[in-house]
Amino acid sequence: MNSTLENLAERVQAQARVPFTARDVERVLAALQGGEDIWRIIEQASTPFIGTCSVLREMEKQGWVEVGEGWVRLTEQGRVACQQLGISEIPELTCPRCRGRGLELSAVPPGAARFHQLVQGRPEASQEYDQGYITEESALARVGMMWRRGDLTGKEILFVGDDDLVCLAAAASGLPRRVVMVDIDRRLVEFVRDVAEREGLRVEAVRHDLRDPLPRALRRRFHTFACDPTESLRGFVAFARRGISALRGEGCAGYFGLTRSEASLAKWRAIQEELLSLGAAITDLIQDFHSYVNWPYLSAMRGWGHLPARRVPGPTETWYRSALVRIELVEVRPVPEDVMAGDIFEDDEAATT
Amino acid sequence: MNSTLENLAERVQAQARVPFTARDVERVLAALQGGEDIWRIIEQASTPFIGTCSVLREMEKQGWVEVGEGWVRLTEQGRVACQQLGISEIPELTCPRCRGRGLELSAVPPGAARFHQLVQGRPEASQEYDQGYITEESALARVGMMWRRGDLTGKEILFVGDDDLVCLAAAASGLPRRVVMVDIDRRLVEFVRDVAEREGLRVEAVRHDLRDPLPRALRRRFHTFACDPTESLRGFVAFARRGISALRGEGCAGYFGLTRSEASLAKWRAIQEELLSLGAAITDLIQDFHSYVNWPYLSAMRGWGHLPARRVPGPTETWYRSALVRIELVEVRPVPEDVMAGDIFEDDEAATT
Repeated sequence: MNSTLENLAERVQAQARVPFTARDVERVLAALQGGEDIWRIIEQASTPFIGTCSVLREMEKQGWVEVGEGWVRLTEQGRVACQQLGISEIPELTCPRCRGRGLELSAVPPGAARFHQLVQGRPEASQEYDQGYITEESALARVGMMWRRGDLTGKEILFVGDDDLVCLAAAASGLPRRVVMVDIDRRLVEFVRDVAEREGLRVEAVRHDLRDPLPRALRRRFHTFACDPTESLRGFVAFARRGISALRGEGCAGYFGLTRSEASLAKWRAIQEELLSLGAAITDLIQDFHSYVNWPYLSAMRGWGHLPARRVPGPTETWYRSALVRIELVEVRPVPEDVMAGDIFEDDEAATT
Repeated sequence: MNSTLENLAERVQAQARVPFTARDVERVLAALQGGEDIWRIIEQASTPFIGTCSVLREMEKQGWVEVGEGWVRLTEQGRVACQQLGISEIPELTCPRCRGRGLELSAVPPGAARFHQLVQGRPEASQEYDQGYITEESALARVGMMWRRGDLTGKEILFVGDDDLVCLAAAASGLPRRVVMVDIDRRLVEFVRDVAEREGLRVEAVRHDLRDPLPRALRRRFHTFACDPTESLRGFVAFARRGISALRGEGCAGYFGLTRSEASLAKWRAIQEELLSLGAAITDLIQDFHSYVNWPYLSAMRGWGHLPARRVPGPTETWYRSALVRIELVEVRPVPEDVMAGDIFEDDEAATT
């Protein structure tokens, strides 16, 4: 890579103490050419949040950008630098029909569309548990993906933490043989139980702290699991282990959400190594599959203080997305059943906790 | 999984000597419910070709299917078995606009659409080198993906073996700084040189046997590489190493094609382990991204003799597809520069060699 970009990346690494590469700097410069809104830049760049904030401040120092209330703009000097470095705007190539998922959204499993009614009155996202839920469309797309891959019909499915309430969409499809959700949040467990009773849905809700191993009755019982772990490496690995320990064996599948915002590609690699070492192959990895509904505690989150350009109210559009990762077990390996002590959310790359 | 399915999988593994799981048997049963054409069943199941052929023969023995000229059909007994096992048809959920790629196909890089003219008169796929090329649409989609991920504009790109001629589409876009293709096949090298000269395209074609390490002048020089290796584990790993040895460093990217037809998920996992151990993270994995043009030597390929139901002429529709795998280097590790001796195509799972 180029030495100018490398110098910037090194300064970010030193200051923000997160992995940030020259390539990441390049992605931020490309995003800056596509618009001025701080949230759009963060979303377009797909680089670690904390590092993105830091590099924008560095760019301001060297006169490449100017910063205002909620916006960051390339200066003439910044534009010249982009030209010299050969960095241009990211082309907008996302399929407008499926929003890049590759999946026909109108073809959700019959029944699952009731989901929109079922989630009315859901508990608001809570910072205590690093919550933040995906849009209803994203939840239905995830169920659609399970259906397409044969992980829904006739299957026993475990949701390992489910503030997204995807368990309700899966159960409403009427296709799985069994649906169970496990969550630490009493409000969610009660909400799911209430909806299930009122609507006659077969879904079990179990309150459980996933820092502890799964209850024995839930181990090696399921064909499919899904989870959106907190993205500290320790937290992600813990959730992945719980999920895999729930699977019956070879040929069973797991679904994860994983962001670029709170996980550098170095962390992605560490996570992928862990998944492979647990006997899985990665079968699908689709960027920007899930969009998040903006959560209420934005200005209280760790990343807020890092933002070079703030604005109240916060973002009006979706800015936080995650990839869909599907794995399939190829080999059954022993899964560590360790208890995770302490704060599993803490991580230098964390922004939304 | 179910013991009936497991018994079938075990018989296939013993006879065909390829990894084949109960889940694979399930996928074949799901595909059988979607149609009778042998090529469509093979494509829909997405299971290893050799194992698929073997399991269809086993199912015939136990009266689950009957077989005719080019077709395989569930019997009443087979339908009952599917019902009892809770296996139903695979829903067709592929986005009709982008064909599941998530990418807006009308938005190919300006200029690249000339590709359709440039490949007129291309050399036919040769069995000697396990060739078989992707459709022109797939080639343009790959270039579109490179553009979207920032791996095209202003970049130096190496095509590590390129009977797909994607190098011509990349060069025709006018966006890369340098395009080089390396191939063992003299016909392809000459074709690319001729087109480049005639059309004034900047693309270099180098004849080289990729069983040997890359020429020194091509190592650590590129931002992006692409390859569609032969899918023996040894062959795939060799090509992956050549590609990665061509990259400048951290933040550089590689593109692979990988099928389910000639690579079991066990092999996928072994390949993914190799990619991670070379310092890469997997950033995208999109199933069925590439469609192949049916090649002329179908009845001479290894898999032909395994087919339970043959028909001449062969398939009229696309039946052979591959996933797109994109990696990005996170850490620079030493890449083994070993010489691969002997037949790199040989592998129990090989069908098209």
